[in-house]
Amino acid sequence: MSTTTHRITLIGLGTIGMSMAALHLSRDNTIVDVFDTRPDFEDYLVKTLPSFLASPNSETGSHPGEVASLVSSGRLNIHSSLATACASATIVQEQGPENLDFKRSIWKRVESLAPASAHFWTSTSGIAASAQQQQLQDKTRLLVVHPFNPPHIMPLLEIVPAPETSPERVEFAREYFSIPGSRHRPVVIRKEIPGFVGNRLAFALLREACHLVQEDVVTAKDLDTILMASLGPRWAGNGVFESYQQGGGEGGIGAFLDKLGGTMQEVWDGLGQVSVAEVKEKVVQQTDEAYGTSISEETRWKKEERLREFLKVQTQRY
Amino acid sequence: MSTTTHRITLIGLGTIGMSMAALHLSRDNTIVDVFDTRPDFEDYLVKTLPSFLASPNSETGSHPGEVASLVSSGRLNIHSSLATACASATIVQEQGPENLDFKRSIWKRVESLAPASAHFWTSTSGIAASAQQQQLQDKTRLLVVHPFNPPHIMPLLEIVPAPETSPERVEFAREYFSIPGSRHRPVVIRKEIPGFVGNRLAFALLREACHLVQEDVVTAKDLDTILMASLGPRWAGNGVFESYQQGGGEGGIGAFLDKLGGTMQEVWDGLGQVSVAEVKEKVVQQTDEAYGTSISEETRWKKEERLREFLKVQTQRY
Repeated sequence: MSTTTHRITLIGLGTIGMSMAALHLSRDNTIVDVFDTRPDFEDYLVKTLPSFLASPNSETGSHPGEVASLVSSGRLNIHSSLATACASATIVQEQGPENLDFKRSIWKRVESLAPASAHFWTSTSGIAASAQQQQLQDKTRLLVVHPFNPPHIMPLLEIVPAPETSPERVEFAREYFSIPGSRHRPVVIRKEIPGFVGNRLAFALLREACHLVQEDVVTAKDLDTILMASLGPRWAGNGVFESYQQGGGEGGIGAFLDKLGGTMQEVWDGLGQVSVAEVKEKVVQQTDEAYGTSISEETRWKKEERLREFLKVQTQRY
Repeated sequence: MSTTTHRITLIGLGTIGMSMAALHLSRDNTIVDVFDTRPDFEDYLVKTLPSFLASPNSETGSHPGEVASLVSSGRLNIHSSLATACASATIVQEQGPENLDFKRSIWKRVESLAPASAHFWTSTSGIAASAQQQQLQDKTRLLVVHPFNPPHIMPLLEIVPAPETSPERVEFAREYFSIPGSRHRPVVIRKEIPGFVGNRLAFALLREACHLVQEDVVTAKDLDTILMASLGPRWAGNGVFESYQQGGGEGGIGAFLDKLGGTMQEVWDGLGQVSVAEVKEKVVQQTDEAYGTSISEETRWKKEERLREFLKVQTQRY
């Protein structure tokens, strides 16, 4: 499969779209076609894409000539019409607004413009493929490929098919991200569910975090310190089940649940059942106070470098 | 404070106790007195402690002569009576059984044996200081110092006072773990609550993880992959509030909650409300299948080295 050239059409080049473009361009068997409705699209792309393409060891992250050279070599094509963008696609991937009407109508248009064999991927974090595919003639070709920000660095891709999506289309997406040497880790989710898996886990933890701040058990900043000083590095090294399997001593997670099941049930039964509306004010106030309300490009760049370092440590085999 | 010599008595030298001994011995201003009721205590200590003391770059992790040299230099004293172990303590720290009757009676005995100024720290993960201090004459001296496994590597210490604990005792514990150059990060929790903060956050995520496995949305192994490929490395770099502050774009976590509050509330309202008993069978079966039921010393050692590497990346300032 890695010898086949894939032609990927990206619709919607906001932050996630730019990062997705960088992900696809980092492979040697791709041609990327990009389309966005913003009037200054080409200028914006030329200005913005380079910082996503730069090597992790670059000092500045800025290579202004790189887009021009990708265009002249034919690796990157900038389109001002959806029709030309989709005409030769192997894969069409959208990162448009999170709005069901938009998704349904864009896929209907794409279906009329792209080759009949093309795969349709949506980067949505919230709108299931089964809802998006309603106006398609061929409902078997659409599935969710949900990345985590920023996708050109973060390994996870949640592949979430609708019941009508064909298994071959699911396998194609999984294989696309599984080529040897890729740092990406596609995982197929077996049922459509709000938030898929990654965000459900994040939101479950966040709800309790908001509850503890709301109840003055801990400040937002101290809670972040707790997470970074314990669970973050633990779960960067091993998942939650593997951690309890190994932390439980003899007998693994079964023994752990036998020993601590009472405490765990007490905590589960007492978890905060808060609403977004009731926790928002205090959480926003404490978070703004702790971190300020803006982040510089330089800081963002250094954070991304650190994320790459974590992932390098993570993939050290033993 | 770092020039004062602290004399720490450790009661209970299981895995956590051994790791705690290594933590205290890694500092240059400590004398450590150890006491445990197991009949082969001294042999066990000589055999077990070295692997906790070894340098992270050691090939084997085994330095059998090290305990003897610590003993002969006076840094480590092995006791066969609680009375001699406590006689000169600045701090008495217990890692005994998680049993309220045991905790109450050991503290009563310790109070009769230790200097009146000594600080009493319990490493409990589940029994509040206010419950443990019931039989003490001076209830102001006891507080929880809850480590995360393994404490000689993992930075977090949750300091959880009872309402009757004196603020000076809390500040002493916080300062003890805050000396310049220490990798440890003490955090004071403002209210006693089951599971404190770290385990509440872990258990909140674990409950949803168990629910998703129980409902066949994802396998235990795939869920672990999802966590390692997204939230683990993210939260190793920044806490949950800081991550949303910066991932929310302009306007930070406030804008994020405005934009995604509907989806988040839908996920919050739909989180699994499962019991330990109903999820246990499938979770244990899938976890055993994915990881086996035992872990070799060598693998454990390599995992610890990787954890140290994550923490090294984490403390790179920017």
